[in-house]
Amino acid sequence: MIPKPINFQDKLSCFTEHWSPKVVAEMNDYQFKLVKIQGEFVWHSHPETDDVFLVLAGRMGILLREGGVESRVDLGPGEMFVVPKGVEHKPVAERECEVLLVEPRGTVNTGEAGGALTAPNDVWI
Amino acid sequence: MIPKPINFQDKLSCFTEHWSPKVVAEMNDYQFKLVKIQGEFVWHSHPETDDVFLVLAGRMGILLREGGVESRVDLGPGEMFVVPKGVEHKPVAERECEVLLVEPRGTVNTGEAGGALTAPNDVWI
Repeated sequence: MIPKPINFQDKLSCFTEHWSPKVVAEMNDYQFKLVKIQGEFVWHSHPETDDVFLVLAGRMGILLREGGVESRVDLGPGEMFVVPKGVEHKPVAERECEVLLVEPRGTVNTGEAGGALTAPNDVWI
Repeated sequence: MIPKPINFQDKLSCFTEHWSPKVVAEMNDYQFKLVKIQGEFVWHSHPETDDVFLVLAGRMGILLREGGVESRVDLGPGEMFVVPKGVEHKPVAERECEVLLVEPRGTVNTGEAGGALTAPNDVWI
């Protein structure tokens, strides 16, 4: 089999919906997922794992809440942030933003919070 | 503590040497490492883990050898490739190329091969 690179722009051109991560690669038990986001997500946390956000295009914010204290980190292209395991967070983006997520296989986008924005898991493109 | 994004360009401006990965972030037991490469690396494999290459700037090739068959994948900016566990590979770059690696903590750059290009592990910038 001829090995092929995974091209993020090619993959991003395959879908338009927001807040619905698509798996593009797996390494060991981890998945690399592309997601387009716009607007406000829900507060949630992942009690069992850290969560990586890497911005490819656009800008996003991640609101964080720990021990009653809120903070915010803003990311642009070529920037990443690791939300520590168990820390409540809420991604936001004023305009559409394209993001690469790195998470253990099986991680649900809304974490423990659930709700209407919960996306189907393990959808490959 | 005020959370700060990890900016790849800022981190890449901190070093000049080739083939010497620098850790910029950890998620669970995995590390995100920046590396500048130019020339030819050594054939090696990682018997215990897949290996992720994500190109930030420039172009690189990854020669692959499995079951006596050689192949090659070429990556440019915004492209990634996962070298499967145990597969022999040899990264090459005609001109300087900036790469993000994702690997389990403790992964050595030359894998089982060792030799002169083996870089100190777990060096943070």
